Amino acid sequence: MLSKSPNSVFVGNKPVMSYVLAVITLFSSGVEEVTLKARGRAISTAVDVAEITKRRFMGNLNVSKATIGTEDVVLREGGKRPVSTIEITLTTKGETKESAP
Amino acid sequence: MLSKSPNSVFVGNKPVMSYVLAVITLFSSGVEEVTLKARGRAISTAVDVAEITKRRFMGNLNVSKATIGTEDVVLREGGKRPVSTIEITLTTKGETKESAP
Repeated sequence: MLSKSPNSVFVGNKPVMSYVLAVITLFSSGVEEVTLKARGRAISTAVDVAEITKRRFMGNLNVSKATIGTEDVVLREGGKRPVSTIEITLTTKGETKESAP
Repeated sequence: MLSKSPNSVFVGNKPVMSYVLAVITLFSSGVEEVTLKARGRAISTAVDVAEITKRRFMGNLNVSKATIGTEDVVLREGGKRPVSTIEITLTTKGETKESAP
């Protein structure tokens, strides 16, 4: 489920701004859609990344959909534990970014 | 934004299961739609509530949409700080719940 595609950013425990930078870099390279993926406690961080990117850096960003789900994580001591996941799809609306007056 | 409607559950810092119980109680009372609302770190918990309710208790639950956003929180020491929010809409598909064979 949470596999790495070229246009996806897997959000973990690094500072929020490092993921924001990753998203901006991807859009700057010409892609039109970036998917944020996270699980467990990092879900809150993924939402922060989407919102901060939109509010502070890319006013034209569109959070088209957020999908939640469950995934099994294999434990080091054996066995599995279900963990919640989120995927947030970010797209540019295709408009030129304009600064507010 | 995060106002309390009769069919909404505001997810905070209590144990996950207390919110799961609140959701099940609402559906048992006859409502067909319950909205989970959370902000900040509680966003991960809200996703857990939706997923646990579906997996363990209500197989017919439909997580129709998750919407993310930003809200200003007024600080005690004055000023405001933006905080991320999520709203997850849960609906029953209208089918009778059947146990797996």
